[in-house]
Amino acid sequence: MSLDPRLLDPARMDRVLAERLSRELDEIEVVFERQLASDLTAVNALCLHVARYRGKMLRPTLVLAGGVAAGGLDALVPEHRTIAATVEMIHMATLVHDDVLDDADVRRAGDTVNRLHGNETAVMLGDYLISNAFHLCSTAGRPEVNLRLGEVTNTLCEGELLQLSHRGDHALSVGTYLEIVRRKTASLIAESVRLGAELAGAPAATADALHRAGTLMGIAFQVQDDVLDLVGEETVTGKSTGRDLALHKMTLPMILHLEAASADERGRMLDLIDGTSARGHDDAAAAIRRRLVEDGAVDAARDRARGFVAEAAAIIADLPDGPGRALLERMAASIVERRA
Amino acid sequence: MSLDPRLLDPARMDRVLAERLSRELDEIEVVFERQLASDLTAVNALCLHVARYRGKMLRPTLVLAGGVAAGGLDALVPEHRTIAATVEMIHMATLVHDDVLDDADVRRAGDTVNRLHGNETAVMLGDYLISNAFHLCSTAGRPEVNLRLGEVTNTLCEGELLQLSHRGDHALSVGTYLEIVRRKTASLIAESVRLGAELAGAPAATADALHRAGTLMGIAFQVQDDVLDLVGEETVTGKSTGRDLALHKMTLPMILHLEAASADERGRMLDLIDGTSARGHDDAAAAIRRRLVEDGAVDAARDRARGFVAEAAAIIADLPDGPGRALLERMAASIVERRA
Repeated sequence: MSLDPRLLDPARMDRVLAERLSRELDEIEVVFERQLASDLTAVNALCLHVARYRGKMLRPTLVLAGGVAAGGLDALVPEHRTIAATVEMIHMATLVHDDVLDDADVRRAGDTVNRLHGNETAVMLGDYLISNAFHLCSTAGRPEVNLRLGEVTNTLCEGELLQLSHRGDHALSVGTYLEIVRRKTASLIAESVRLGAELAGAPAATADALHRAGTLMGIAFQVQDDVLDLVGEETVTGKSTGRDLALHKMTLPMILHLEAASADERGRMLDLIDGTSARGHDDAAAAIRRRLVEDGAVDAARDRARGFVAEAAAIIADLPDGPGRALLERMAASIVERRA
Repeated sequence: MSLDPRLLDPARMDRVLAERLSRELDEIEVVFERQLASDLTAVNALCLHVARYRGKMLRPTLVLAGGVAAGGLDALVPEHRTIAATVEMIHMATLVHDDVLDDADVRRAGDTVNRLHGNETAVMLGDYLISNAFHLCSTAGRPEVNLRLGEVTNTLCEGELLQLSHRGDHALSVGTYLEIVRRKTASLIAESVRLGAELAGAPAATADALHRAGTLMGIAFQVQDDVLDLVGEETVTGKSTGRDLALHKMTLPMILHLEAASADERGRMLDLIDGTSARGHDDAAAAIRRRLVEDGAVDAARDRARGFVAEAAAIIADLPDGPGRALLERMAASIVERRA
């Protein structure tokens, strides 16, 4: 497992840090795979398939970055690997269940579990990943970490349930959208960096500052994800796009468009939304995309994401100078520049 | 919440124990509901619906029974309530996801979550329940309990995945069927009674004996469930029946029939199985039920269940005399007598 190259540009990154992170991520991969090993071949085959989903390793890297930011490279302890593998496993579980919710066929340029083995197996495999994440977390022997991650997964599910309860709600406000995003995506990202810092012995003020920065980065990350679902290319993102439109899931570009639209424009857009099919790639969807790009709603959503990143960067800039701060700065900047 | 009357026949049960158990179960219900309370009304409405699923309270009662068997009524500590609510919440999560897997419409004589709100919401609500179960467990501050319950939920998911990988496998053996059942059902039941004993300070030998008895009771419980899915009445069981046939899920009566059948009989039965519809209630399903009752396969499956209960009873009989032993004896006996 190599670190996302966008995060490890050698021109910008200290080589010692880069090599250490790469080694740590390899070890985290070992912890991850050892945890999922079963005596049942049917289970192992499924886990092998899911291993392909691991890509950016954003959350494990944030656990490490939090630790390095708090105490330098020497502050990384074995529990960092355990918790880094745990947060990645929680993330994998949400991907597998999200693909069921989104009826998605493609993930990381390959078939999804639900596409290959049916929704039933995907539901149960997601459960197996959640269960193993909590089991792995418990091996660290730190009940306060269990408690914290349990709170995060509660929040994450609440975000998904809130989003489901607003499917097809054309009056969804920016505020509720951001609350959904804060819960379903930003909560785990923020806790990853905070736990990394705490495991390295960070004082509460530093840990909480990193949690705030992580929340802002997480919100920006999800807004960019939603923009890419709308205007990204499947061959670049490596996953099904157009799912939000197909499922009548309201995301920021659409919300901003409807807020600014005249009554006539709004009516035309709602007609187009009604006309999209469950497959998501049709004339109505293409017309919606064109309209949201042309009237500046996509750019406005990207601007909001950049604003959140700037807020996060301001918090990060207040950290003591060092390789951890540099890494977090680079990670924050990469969020809105990515195309996949 | 009142205890299942089948478990609390006053003629057989010590009144002091009965009143104490009833009070404890009320408290466990409070812990359960407090844990699931969310600031989101959409989430609370779903949890209120799921609260209707609580019926037999078998697993919480086993946590208490394990504690009483190990140390009498005075050995019950607050952690018993926390863990009892936790195992019930894990069980609820499996019910919600099972109803998605089984495409079931009816549970406890009401609509299932998937029927009312769609599969997506049911998947996510199940996740919310799992997450809250782990969070609640972590509040007990006993990492070894987290670890043990994490192992159990891993095993439980493996059992479900093993079963899914054998859907439509007409050559499923009794051995593999029992391995599926041991994992998906008996593991949580066995751990409930063991944890109850351990929280009351039981020596390892007693705790492990209770775990063995719980495993046998759990296997018998699932065999009886499978028999009721085949020959039970929806108006009595309160949940969708005929789902196993509809989903080509092989259960013990069918396995025993096919094992004993001549080549001709086997061929006729496989034709009938192929002829069942996804709704499960049709002429082919009725003919299968009739055949399995007439040739004694249903009775043979019940006899196996009674055999497991007898093995469990022999272990329980070795426990010191007292209200805990009496309760466990009564619970074991009720498993194969129940009709719902």
